[in-house]
Amino acid sequence: MTGEPTITDIRAAAVRIRPWAHRTPVLTCAGLDAMVGARLFFKCENFQKVGAFKFRGATNAVFALSDTEAARGVATHSSGNHAAALSLAARLRGIPAHVVMPRTSRAVKQAAVAGYGGNVVLCEPTLAAREATLESVVAATGAAVVHPYNDPMVIAGQGTAALELLDEVDGLDIVMTPVGGGGLLSGTAITVTAVSPATRVVAAEPAAADDAFRSLKEGRLVPSVNPTTIADGLLTSLGTLTFAIIRHNVSEIVTVSEDAIAAAMRHVWERMKIVIEPSSAVPVGALLEGALRAPGARIGVILTGGNVDLDRLPWARP
Amino acid sequence: MTGEPTITDIRAAAVRIRPWAHRTPVLTCAGLDAMVGARLFFKCENFQKVGAFKFRGATNAVFALSDTEAARGVATHSSGNHAAALSLAARLRGIPAHVVMPRTSRAVKQAAVAGYGGNVVLCEPTLAAREATLESVVAATGAAVVHPYNDPMVIAGQGTAALELLDEVDGLDIVMTPVGGGGLLSGTAITVTAVSPATRVVAAEPAAADDAFRSLKEGRLVPSVNPTTIADGLLTSLGTLTFAIIRHNVSEIVTVSEDAIAAAMRHVWERMKIVIEPSSAVPVGALLEGALRAPGARIGVILTGGNVDLDRLPWARP
Repeated sequence: MTGEPTITDIRAAAVRIRPWAHRTPVLTCAGLDAMVGARLFFKCENFQKVGAFKFRGATNAVFALSDTEAARGVATHSSGNHAAALSLAARLRGIPAHVVMPRTSRAVKQAAVAGYGGNVVLCEPTLAAREATLESVVAATGAAVVHPYNDPMVIAGQGTAALELLDEVDGLDIVMTPVGGGGLLSGTAITVTAVSPATRVVAAEPAAADDAFRSLKEGRLVPSVNPTTIADGLLTSLGTLTFAIIRHNVSEIVTVSEDAIAAAMRHVWERMKIVIEPSSAVPVGALLEGALRAPGARIGVILTGGNVDLDRLPWARP
Repeated sequence: MTGEPTITDIRAAAVRIRPWAHRTPVLTCAGLDAMVGARLFFKCENFQKVGAFKFRGATNAVFALSDTEAARGVATHSSGNHAAALSLAARLRGIPAHVVMPRTSRAVKQAAVAGYGGNVVLCEPTLAAREATLESVVAATGAAVVHPYNDPMVIAGQGTAALELLDEVDGLDIVMTPVGGGGLLSGTAITVTAVSPATRVVAAEPAAADDAFRSLKEGRLVPSVNPTTIADGLLTSLGTLTFAIIRHNVSEIVTVSEDAIAAAMRHVWERMKIVIEPSSAVPVGALLEGALRAPGARIGVILTGGNVDLDRLPWARP
């Protein structure tokens, strides 16, 4: 599959990953509802395996390979949740995962990938070095490259979270996700457009890394240049495939300040007693900040993950 | 009711609080199971209303009052979860709650009680002042005093958490709770003894506030003197009523170091992606530290609450 995935691909992904992925709970919180003036339904992917929705896409890609393809392993370059997710998915299938990471990535992240069984391959911290290193790994092993988001099987896997959400909650006016590379957003948009066409899909993006907002506005890919945000899962820019899907299926992208992201993250921890990472808090921040106004609406929010460095919380005093 | 509550009282409490309290989920975590070498079933009272199991006991006490009694309101002295729980339970019944708090208690705690509708009455920070102030509130209003733990209706309410746990999980070898004043522990012990007599009840207590451990050992109440522990919900000593119940129904009390409590709390946050307060982590700390060894056992653990000051986490560097 090389083109845009369809709802049929997403339904197939749901069946494929069912033995491996958690069906995560949908939680509500009267306190947060009162703060934003809407009814929120939180799809808790922080409780997903490896602590993030990324496990869905990686698992779909890994288990969609033929046995012959799979035997040669999988490879990617990533230092975040996708790396952990691909490593675990590969281990569950009994095949190797080669993960190219910059040698400057934090030791704790390298250890996490290795802990899930991934083969960490270090490289210089430049995009060129990452790509060259990944190429040489593929040349040596024949491994299948699984891109973190610009991959139809990955997008199809990410779309299964919204499928479960719509199955569980009726009559949603809006579904919100954050947007970084756009894998979750594009998978969600395909699902919602097909299953619940009256529901709007709205993405939230850090104002400090607003390439998707600008790309949608200008009608062409406008990558971020050296973005900095506490939502470190959202530093990446849209890919060609995710942008094409998002252009045609997403109603609106709103941007959120760093302060609102941190405040939203803290409110969720305090009110809901769950650990979410900053990227998860971006849609909540948009609602708190009034970037999206939808009084009384029923809003599904995909909380993307819960992998956070407890020694570096955004509200910690320096 | 003035004597020890029975399982009948606990079943009545379950019916009485059902319209108001959450039936909290039971979560599992393969990562923590591997760390302690047992199968853990976490009853998540951090997701309870006001963020703590205390809502069960307070609600049972408030709704068990006759209309005539209730009309005069309720009163207590507490600066913690019981104060918030009693305030909310009273508001749900539409009656006043008078909460005596030391004037040195943190403003955020006073605000929390007021936020739930409690009438905060400040006093000097001594036990004598608290008791005298409470007496004068009662003399002026006729309010019913609801003690945080040494009260049969409160104990019966706390026992409903274990009732739900045993209803949901079969074949538990052990049920663990932390112990402070002993309300949760004694309610749990009555439930478990009646419903699942083959299951042992084991309490975990901070070594730095080990009055229950010493009281059980010496066969008489030995209150703590100026205990200090990060598990600030467990600073109180057993009451006469809770001690009597615990003596006859609890298999064992184990003690836990401060380091193990902090480490356990962090592990639960990182692995389970849920926010628990230090008191909740004490049984997990006991298992991590080897204070209780039960290889392969099925262990129910009541996570008591999730109200934590995010600016003062135990692993924060000073």
